[in-house]
Amino acid sequence: MFYVVTYDVATDTKEGQRRLRRVAQACEGYGQRVQKSVFECVLDQTRYVELVHRLGGVIRRDEDSVRIYRTQDFTRNSLVVLGKDLGLHLDSPWTV
Amino acid sequence: MFYVVTYDVATDTKEGQRRLRRVAQACEGYGQRVQKSVFECVLDQTRYVELVHRLGGVIRRDEDSVRIYRTQDFTRNSLVVLGKDLGLHLDSPWTV
Repeated sequence: MFYVVTYDVATDTKEGQRRLRRVAQACEGYGQRVQKSVFECVLDQTRYVELVHRLGGVIRRDEDSVRIYRTQDFTRNSLVVLGKDLGLHLDSPWTV
Repeated sequence: MFYVVTYDVATDTKEGQRRLRRVAQACEGYGQRVQKSVFECVLDQTRYVELVHRLGGVIRRDEDSVRIYRTQDFTRNSLVVLGKDLGLHLDSPWTV
């Protein structure tokens, strides 16, 4: 299954900057960074639940936000990229 | 159709900061901001192509990145939100 993970971490404190690094590090174990705060992941159910659990343990729920979008029907036509593209080249998304 | 728009704009110059504002303004006309650089949009094909065209006219392709994910099968179970949730409450995504 294909997942897009996006996050906003409040970095106005040192502790927040540390959380931001830890969120990115957690995601790096499960997928590819495609923008500063966006990762693309191809995961089975076990790894998906693992990632949700890890991220939940890092963020501050009252300050930070993580959104994990799951899409079953991700194909070449599901993604349009304008400008720089660091993404998983699942037979190359349409780049404009 | 449901779209997730994510973007990274190089803001190390005044001009880049202006582009960031213009990208956000463009997206605001088509959907809801759910994180600093993430919008959720429900669009028909015409409005979708309009948005792609507008964003393409704002960004610098060599510096900025916009990713527009399209998902046909977006349902209540397609999204997990950890922490703060500003999203479209399409009968309320699963919030943890």
